[in-house]
Amino acid sequence: MSQQVTPVSLPDIQRPVARELERVGGELRRIVAADFRIIAEANEHLLRMKGKLFRPTLLLLANRACGADDPRAVTLAAVVELFHLATLVHDDSVDHSVLRRGLPTINALFSHQVAVIMGDYLYSRAIIELVRLDDLEPLRVFAGVTNEMTVGEMRQLEAHDKLAYGEAEYDQLIRSKTASLLAGACEVGALRGARTHREALGRFGLRLGMAFQITDDLLDYTEPEAVTGKPSGLDLKEHKVTLPLIAALAKMPPADRRVVAELMETPDPGDELVAEAIRLVEAGGGLDYARRRAAELAQQAEAELDLLPPSAARDALRDSIAYAVERRS
Amino acid sequence: MSQQVTPVSLPDIQRPVARELERVGGELRRIVAADFRIIAEANEHLLRMKGKLFRPTLLLLANRACGADDPRAVTLAAVVELFHLATLVHDDSVDHSVLRRGLPTINALFSHQVAVIMGDYLYSRAIIELVRLDDLEPLRVFAGVTNEMTVGEMRQLEAHDKLAYGEAEYDQLIRSKTASLLAGACEVGALRGARTHREALGRFGLRLGMAFQITDDLLDYTEPEAVTGKPSGLDLKEHKVTLPLIAALAKMPPADRRVVAELMETPDPGDELVAEAIRLVEAGGGLDYARRRAAELAQQAEAELDLLPPSAARDALRDSIAYAVERRS
Repeated sequence: MSQQVTPVSLPDIQRPVARELERVGGELRRIVAADFRIIAEANEHLLRMKGKLFRPTLLLLANRACGADDPRAVTLAAVVELFHLATLVHDDSVDHSVLRRGLPTINALFSHQVAVIMGDYLYSRAIIELVRLDDLEPLRVFAGVTNEMTVGEMRQLEAHDKLAYGEAEYDQLIRSKTASLLAGACEVGALRGARTHREALGRFGLRLGMAFQITDDLLDYTEPEAVTGKPSGLDLKEHKVTLPLIAALAKMPPADRRVVAELMETPDPGDELVAEAIRLVEAGGGLDYARRRAAELAQQAEAELDLLPPSAARDALRDSIAYAVERRS
Repeated sequence: MSQQVTPVSLPDIQRPVARELERVGGELRRIVAADFRIIAEANEHLLRMKGKLFRPTLLLLANRACGADDPRAVTLAAVVELFHLATLVHDDSVDHSVLRRGLPTINALFSHQVAVIMGDYLYSRAIIELVRLDDLEPLRVFAGVTNEMTVGEMRQLEAHDKLAYGEAEYDQLIRSKTASLLAGACEVGALRGARTHREALGRFGLRLGMAFQITDDLLDYTEPEAVTGKPSGLDLKEHKVTLPLIAALAKMPPADRRVVAELMETPDPGDELVAEAIRLVEAGGGLDYARRRAAELAQQAEAELDLLPPSAARDALRDSIAYAVERRS
């Protein structure tokens, strides 16, 4: 599949659910509303930095594709974005990031303290909203997913500085950190659908999410800062070990391996050392390997969609695979 | 009431539910269990620093006092302690605290990053456990309470450096930060009881929690470090405005007021300035006022217990009021 598709834009994918997506922002605003000044200000800021709504898009498409027509879909779509936002706020605080989607992070604009509390605020608001829906099923899925995401975050902390980090560990990391929420979005979108559809969409989301994260990790090697908004080689600079490096290391000659080891031992490695490591990873076939693995996962995701009846929403989900693996930012 | 009681120890209060309390630790261990190394280590550390289990005690006593005999009580008691623990882990991280209950905090022992993620882990595990119980009611109460607690934390951040901070704001702060979880513990303990009992116990917990926090704030003025484990005057040192100061400021002569203003403007005020401010607060009647207010809330809490049938558990709840307002640490 991914060999022949033409570039797909997110608005193309979103077309079948464009009307619902327009209502997600308002729902989000309603759910997080607060009287208290700092919280209200942080909310406004977060609503301004609103992202591409990829997770709400998946949830709404999954709902449509399984023919369930769940009346709660827009609210659930807002909730999945809210879980994503809460995670980003804590991630940025943990990573001391200062920019997110071109705007200052909550920790940069306010403080670490506000960021920690704000993440908790958003998360508990999402739970309150799910309780209001009076149904334990979405809670069951999202509680499991968000807990898994925290385990993923811990894995990420351990993944630094480790030349011995293997592909199996990396797979676990991206499953828990990224793919679990995409799987949850698809599954919750299909909660009122047939069990076979719900399960297929959950598996679809998991594969899609893994491919999505591998692509993200590839972009760090391949795209210049002007395109992604992040300096290229940032992961290497921060000693984050991702699939391209893991794959290249597996068959790297000792001399090259020593360069990577040096980079991992240097607290704040310079641009030259980072550029050298990027070159070695590429020469060692690490980028090709990661691309093949993303394509493989994309195919697995696509196969799950065959279990659904044909529809515009199913086509859009298929296109979302191409979007996930072919985007440049 | 609080004029005539003899000192009450926590084990006295816990006697009617001692057997259930013994099982809370095991439940807690089961609920937080993790394969992943850092999380397992942080869990062990947190279980070692296990506190007095005051919130589980209240939940179990409320359950007994309303005659509901809820078979889930031990699990719910573990969950309320878990919410408390998750909050402490984030609070310590936000406050950069290094000690808690005589042991290093998670942020001190591991890192701020681990503390932020660990708090999220514990919180989401508590939600998972509540979902497992297959009943939305405890989730409804605890989701509301934990969200209110985050608002309380934000209020706390704003409470610094403000001579104009008033009693109404302080009341809101201690309600949301402390009393809401004690109220939630009592209410959830009585979920299977009669509605009048459940509501009375919720109001009881709220009043008790406010009295508990005022007492905590008083201890900072009255007790030496050897007794409380915290240096006395720490709140003043950190520019935290609590009831004794608010009450004293209301009728403080301009010269004394200037001393307090100086302290609030000094980034890390010295022991002498702090001691001087403590003296002024005492001379200004701030301690007496806070004691009277705690006693008033204690009486209101006790009045709610009259709505329950007589029992050993009700007597223990009455004793818990004396414990809350007369403890020295």
